[in-house]
Amino acid sequence: MMQLGRHISGQFNAELESIRTHLLTMGGLVEQQLSYAMHALHKDDIELARKVVRDDHKVNAMEVSIDEACTRIIAKRQPTAKDLRLIMSIIKTITDLERIGDVATKMAYITIESSTVKERTFQAALEPLCRSAIEMLHQVLDAFARMDLEAAVRIYKLDDKLDNEVESVIASLTTSMIEDSDNIPNILTVMWSARAIERIGDRCQNICEYIIYFVKGKDVRHIDEHTIDEAVED
Amino acid sequence: MMQLGRHISGQFNAELESIRTHLLTMGGLVEQQLSYAMHALHKDDIELARKVVRDDHKVNAMEVSIDEACTRIIAKRQPTAKDLRLIMSIIKTITDLERIGDVATKMAYITIESSTVKERTFQAALEPLCRSAIEMLHQVLDAFARMDLEAAVRIYKLDDKLDNEVESVIASLTTSMIEDSDNIPNILTVMWSARAIERIGDRCQNICEYIIYFVKGKDVRHIDEHTIDEAVED
Repeated sequence: MMQLGRHISGQFNAELESIRTHLLTMGGLVEQQLSYAMHALHKDDIELARKVVRDDHKVNAMEVSIDEACTRIIAKRQPTAKDLRLIMSIIKTITDLERIGDVATKMAYITIESSTVKERTFQAALEPLCRSAIEMLHQVLDAFARMDLEAAVRIYKLDDKLDNEVESVIASLTTSMIEDSDNIPNILTVMWSARAIERIGDRCQNICEYIIYFVKGKDVRHIDEHTIDEAVED
Repeated sequence: MMQLGRHISGQFNAELESIRTHLLTMGGLVEQQLSYAMHALHKDDIELARKVVRDDHKVNAMEVSIDEACTRIIAKRQPTAKDLRLIMSIIKTITDLERIGDVATKMAYITIESSTVKERTFQAALEPLCRSAIEMLHQVLDAFARMDLEAAVRIYKLDDKLDNEVESVIASLTTSMIEDSDNIPNILTVMWSARAIERIGDRCQNICEYIIYFVKGKDVRHIDEHTIDEAVED
C-alpha cells in the first residue's frame, strides 16, 4: 500500500485508500472491456461483444459511486494539500476512464453490427491499435497505483507512437477507399474507431497529468513535453 | 446575481461568485472562439482563423486558473452541501468548455490549411452544424448562469437534433466520396470536424447534467432522457 501520509484519523486514511482501490478496480474493468472488445472484433465473437455492451453500465456505476465517495470525503473530512490533490486527481481520472469504457462499447457494437467478411477485413487494422491503447492504459493505471512520477512522464510520451500508428492506419484505409469505393461506408466505420482509439491515448495522457499534479502539485496541462520535463525536475 | 445561499462569511460568498463569473467569462470566450472559427471557415478568413489558434491558450489558462481557485476554496473554506456541489459542477464544466475550445482551434486549422475552392465547397456543410452547436452552447451557459433546471433538461434534449444534423451531413459527404473519389482526403477532413462538432453537443449535455446535479443533488449521468424527467420532477 502506498504511503499517502499519516492522518490523526486512521478512518480518514482507510477511506482514502478505499477510494483509490475502487479507482484501480474501475481501471481494471475498463482495461478488460477494451481487451474483450478487441478479442470480439478479432475473433468475430458476437457473444463476447454483447457481454461488453452489457457490462458498460458497471463502468458507469463505478464512476458515479467513486465520484460520490470523493464528494462525501471532501464534505466530511475537509482534506487539504496532498489529500485534496489525490481526491481531485481521482475525480478527474474516473471521467477519462469512463470515456475509455465507451470506446470499448462502441467497438463491441461494430462487431455485433458487421456481417460480411469484407467488413471484417478492414476491421483487422484496429487490433494492433487497440493493443497499443490497452498497453498504454495498463501502464498508466500501474503508474497511478504507485503515483509514479517518472512513469507518468514516460507514458505521456508514448502517445506520439499511438498517434503515428493511427495515422498510418487511416492513411492505408484512405487508400482502400479510393480503390474500392463500394466499401466506403464500411471503411468509415473502421476509421471512426481508429480515431476513438487515438483519443484513448489522449485520455491516458490526461491521467498522466493528474499523476504529475498529485506528486508535484503542478498543473501541467496545456504545456509541451519539454516543459513537462522541466516541471517534474524541479 | 443568483442567490447561492447565505454564508456567515461574506468573503466566501464573494469568492464563490467570483469563480462563477470566471466560468461564465470562459464560456463566453469559448463561444466566441467557435463563432470566429465558423466565420473564418465560411469567409475563408485566414487572419481570423489565426486569431482563433492564437487565443486558444487563453481558454486553457482560464481552465487552469478556475480549477486552482476551486481547489483553493475547498481547502480554505471547507464547503459542504450546495456550495460543494457548485464547486464540483464548475470543476467539471470547465473541462468540457476547454475541449469545446479545442474544436474551434481544430476548425481554424482547417481554414488555414485548405487552399482549393473544391475543399471549401465541402466545408460549407459545417457551417449550419457549427451554428447549432454554438446555439446549444449559448443556451447551456445561460442555464448555468441561472442554474435553471428546466432549461437544462430542455437543452439536454436538443442534442438529438444536432446528432441528426450531423448524421445527415455525414451521409451526404459519404455520397460525395463515392462519386468523387479524388476528393476523399478533403472530405475526410470535413467529416472529422462534423464528428467533433457532434461531440460539442455531448459536452453541452454533460454541462446540463452538472446543472441538474447542482440543483437537485442527483447524479443523472448514464440514465436515459425519460429517467431524467422523473429525476427532476421529484
